[in-house]
Amino acid sequence: MDDQPLALVLFSGTDDKLNAAAVMTAGAAALGRPVHVFLQYWALDAFRADRIERDHGLAAEAGPAGRVAVDGLRAAGQAPWYETLRQAKELGTVDIQACSLSMDLLRIEHQDLDPLVDGVEGVTAFYINAGEGQVLFI
Amino acid sequence: MDDQPLALVLFSGTDDKLNAAAVMTAGAAALGRPVHVFLQYWALDAFRADRIERDHGLAAEAGPAGRVAVDGLRAAGQAPWYETLRQAKELGTVDIQACSLSMDLLRIEHQDLDPLVDGVEGVTAFYINAGEGQVLFI
Amino acid sequence: MDDQPLALVLFSGTDDKLNAAAVMTAGAAALGRPVHVFLQYWALDAFRADRIERDHGLAAEAGPAGRVAVDGLRAAGQAPWYETLRQAKELGTVDIQACSLSMDLLRIEHQDLDPLVDGVEGVTAFYINAGEGQVLFI
Repeated sequence: MDDQPLALVLFSGTDDKLNAAAVMTAGAAALGRPVHVFLQYWALDAFRADRIERDHGLAAEAGPAGRVAVDGLRAAGQAPWYETLRQAKELGTVDIQACSLSMDLLRIEHQDLDPLVDGVEGVTAFYINAGEGQVLFI
Repeated sequence: MDDQPLALVLFSGTDDKLNAAAVMTAGAAALGRPVHVFLQYWALDAFRADRIERDHGLAAEAGPAGRVAVDGLRAAGQAPWYETLRQAKELGTVDIQACSLSMDLLRIEHQDLDPLVDGVEGVTAFYINAGEGQVLFI
Repeated sequence: MDDQPLALVLFSGTDDKLNAAAVMTAGAAALGRPVHVFLQYWALDAFRADRIERDHGLAAEAGPAGRVAVDGLRAAGQAPWYETLRQAKELGTVDIQACSLSMDLLRIEHQDLDPLVDGVEGVTAFYINAGEGQVLFI
């Protein structure tokens, strides 16, 4: 299984979902699996260079108790999701691509995005790069 | 990979997620892959014949800026998700089935659904039709 | 396909998503497929022994009409999601594991969880147990 690729379509841009995605990415990279990440909609918005370190909120269901739990773990030293992704890229083969249609939606260019993002591609290119491996939509 | 099937379980019925699902479907169909779509809960509700063209809202996280972005792309000529699905069905092999349990939930019959929906099936039939290909839950 | 494993990453903890997950699990188990469930964030919170039978709300998009539909199906005798999961475990091979990072987030121990949960594992163990089968993120 070591070289079985993993593909993640990231749609949601809240910090809890992005953290889950970063952990899934880092875990696969640690196992030696190439990971291909495709950013759409609100997840892509969270990767803008001028916003990536901002608070992106939590899923609506988190509620006040969820907010307290997330803040507590962060205060205890948990790395933010974009740091986890940076570490995963240093550790293994992690390719992060922005969906071209979502770039049009947000009216942004590649240079508006954080350097974590390697490029821009369409959905057919995504499928070709993902190959026959597992795919998660987050 | 050309004939590797793709299966999508659509649960969410907001216009942003449905559009993402339609784009993933159309991209796979364009590559010659058969696509099997299974409609549950709020996604199924969005396929009612008398509601499919309505505004189905956006994910809670979209916020007012997301609303403006989505409306802007639509005003610039982006096809709505149900048109993208219609085109995908003309282009390739796209089978759209309603989950029988969700039909009970919404108390509707097959004739209450838009003609995009080909039939009603249970979850075991879904798995058999999906085969061993990639599956996304949206 | 009978012995092809299925893996589910459960992130969301609302009753509609948990019910969808339970139905996907039960359907796969009925087909003889081993199912591996990995609980993160708000889904893990819903499996606390002292909360599992509580009302966990619905996705924000459900709205008042969705609430009425869900309550109606429950009043008509639909089993709650945790009962469907219990039946799936009796019927087939269903392993439910809590994500160790999410255990830290919620500051809970294994004994705080409902007996449906078989153990605690990290994300790399999840990937190894999931193998090369289909994976859904819910």
